Amino acid sequence: MGLVVQKFGGSSVANTERIRNVAGIIADTYKAGDNVVVVLSAQGDTTDDLIEKAAELNPNPSKREMDMLLSTGEQISVALCAMTLEGMGLPVVSLTGWQAGVRTNSAYGDARIKRVIDERVLTELDKRNIVIVTGFQGINKYDDITTLGRGGSDTSAVALAAALHADLCQIYTDVDGVYTADPRSVTGAMKLEEITYDEMLELASLGAQVLHNRSVELAKQYGVNLEVISSFTKQPGTKVKEVVKTMEKLHVSGVAKDTKIARIALVGLSDRPGIAYKVFSLLAKKNINVDIILQSIGRDETKDISFTISKKDLDAARQIIEENREIIGFDHMTISDSVAKISVVGAGMVNNPGVAASMFEVLYNAGININMISTSEIKVSVLVDIADADRAVQVVHDRFFSEFGR
Amino acid sequence: MGLVVQKFGGSSVANTERIRNVAGIIADTYKAGDNVVVVLSAQGDTTDDLIEKAAELNPNPSKREMDMLLSTGEQISVALCAMTLEGMGLPVVSLTGWQAGVRTNSAYGDARIKRVIDERVLTELDKRNIVIVTGFQGINKYDDITTLGRGGSDTSAVALAAALHADLCQIYTDVDGVYTADPRSVTGAMKLEEITYDEMLELASLGAQVLHNRSVELAKQYGVNLEVISSFTKQPGTKVKEVVKTMEKLHVSGVAKDTKIARIALVGLSDRPGIAYKVFSLLAKKNINVDIILQSIGRDETKDISFTISKKDLDAARQIIEENREIIGFDHMTISDSVAKISVVGAGMVNNPGVAASMFEVLYNAGININMISTSEIKVSVLVDIADADRAVQVVHDRFFSEFGR
Repeated sequence: MGLVVQKFGGSSVANTERIRNVAGIIADTYKAGDNVVVVLSAQGDTTDDLIEKAAELNPNPSKREMDMLLSTGEQISVALCAMTLEGMGLPVVSLTGWQAGVRTNSAYGDARIKRVIDERVLTELDKRNIVIVTGFQGINKYDDITTLGRGGSDTSAVALAAALHADLCQIYTDVDGVYTADPRSVTGAMKLEEITYDEMLELASLGAQVLHNRSVELAKQYGVNLEVISSFTKQPGTKVKEVVKTMEKLHVSGVAKDTKIARIALVGLSDRPGIAYKVFSLLAKKNINVDIILQSIGRDETKDISFTISKKDLDAARQIIEENREIIGFDHMTISDSVAKISVVGAGMVNNPGVAASMFEVLYNAGININMISTSEIKVSVLVDIADADRAVQVVHDRFFSEFGR
Repeated sequence: MGLVVQKFGGSSVANTERIRNVAGIIADTYKAGDNVVVVLSAQGDTTDDLIEKAAELNPNPSKREMDMLLSTGEQISVALCAMTLEGMGLPVVSLTGWQAGVRTNSAYGDARIKRVIDERVLTELDKRNIVIVTGFQGINKYDDITTLGRGGSDTSAVALAAALHADLCQIYTDVDGVYTADPRSVTGAMKLEEITYDEMLELASLGAQVLHNRSVELAKQYGVNLEVISSFTKQPGTKVKEVVKTMEKLHVSGVAKDTKIARIALVGLSDRPGIAYKVFSLLAKKNINVDIILQSIGRDETKDISFTISKKDLDAARQIIEENREIIGFDHMTISDSVAKISVVGAGMVNNPGVAASMFEVLYNAGININMISTSEIKVSVLVDIADADRAVQVVHDRFFSEFGR
């Protein structure tokens, strides 16, 4: 008998019919002999409804009170799901984040889990109860309710799986696994049977928003076996683990596209040490993350720096740079928000320099111009015009998944 | 500087506009220099909506899970109200029942408060924060969320007022105080300035559902000064306290009507000891409360027993009596659910035998037949036909409140 943690997102519990479906999945797992801990998000639009109510009364409420408000959404989900399982004659108990021992820091609205005191959950499992826990929330040292921010319920599930030494942590979503590319827009995109934590991290950060990075990082840290799986089909999903079976051969796991980025170029900077530091420390102070950075080789005692940031940070970045124009010292700034980042991700890539070359080749053959290039141990990213993005993903995907396959 | 506990019911926080109104009342009290603890119910129909959702998934859920579900309603209220006060620039913190230290027994759905651990609330008050607490809920010794059942939020407010030694506990409702009779149906009904706990208890149990008995009993036990007051007008309400100023003179505080009752008569019981015990112990076992009991004087070795019960218990009572027909031994049973109880309540009554006589006189003059009579130290109740009920209240009210006044 094993222990399985199953997490279901907001769309999986959006209405009566879907809660019944989720209860069915839980019941099947339990009846097969496993102990089951379930983590649920708030129902579909509950969170948005609550945010709207709050906005009517105060457009700028404290994060503490928002957490107090929003945490009710998951509590409703777990109670309703527990009742459904009761109706099926199964032993079940629902627990809030604090009841399940989820302790966080005090960053209301974006808290981090510090530890899970697993006593209560273990007591319930000992009684062979199914345990349904609210995702997305915990309490801090003041006993105030906190929420975990984006991807919070996934993180709750992984943290519980880690604390309870679960055999498997299944993340049920509305997609049936991790694909080699977005199946909605790329012909021939294939579901992956397995993927490593690092690949999953790269894919998530590159716009394939199946799992939030925080949960994958936590899973990697504690060696939690993850599975991304659909709550609507009965098919096996994609396993996320440390080492995958197919490791020996070239392992390109996917092609991702990120269009939520913008590029800023500072032209005519003086070619002396410390300039890059100045620019990026200013941005860091405003919590603006910089992704690809390209610095031209200096000539005529000037150089250029280009970098990409999230589109949402563009206005703030532009403002901070303009305000510090004198300190930085540059000739002019150019900005483009019509760019996209296309990335090939694969754990075997570091030993296969041919991957980058192949990628550049197919893009050249397709007449797609590359603006910037960035490589890491497990990925190659290129910046292209947003108009070319979908075509770029398709030709790159065709290149790797028709020749190498998996 | 005093400490005031203010409780607002579901209709007082039903929508954005009303929450703003409530926040205004709280802000005025706070700005006048008092420390303020607020207890809120769930918004208007929230509880009903949640019950409906639950019923779709399981028509008979456990009370534990219902408490988990329903307790979210008050949590939403307190967060929204706290945000509104934040928007007004006031220091405020919302707390759930467990955060406010409300510990109950484990009777899910109808729990009793065992104690209030006031540490957190006191800490917040020391910071001059307004403290907004969820009514209707607490936690039991397992750290499970419990709800207090009917009148629960009033009880929460009184319990907090008792624990914190508050100077005043204001119960805001949609009526502006306690009246000498229901002002919607009785001409000349007057608002009372003051009333004793005992009178309030009698009035509440007699159908003037302004305050739930549990909260009044608790207030009496701990000497909490209550005030029933409207959240819609700015008028003073009715104070509920141990001794009222007007105690010296005849003190008839009100005339109440209860139509939610039924009468059962058992005719032709054998006239021997223990028969009454048999009947009423059977009913007690099924948790059926009996109110007025009338036993005829025995003749021909038989006697009759009539008694009143809640209309909702009628079917159960009939069934248990029928099932035990042999054991009880009676000729036949007659049942009437078209009766009403009219009561005059007043602390000065015990020393004024004229009250009962006056009541019977005006009813006789109005041609209203009295079926049963019951008296206690502070009330006289009569059973009349339901068709005569409103007229009976009016003539009795006219009799006492035109002659004696207050």
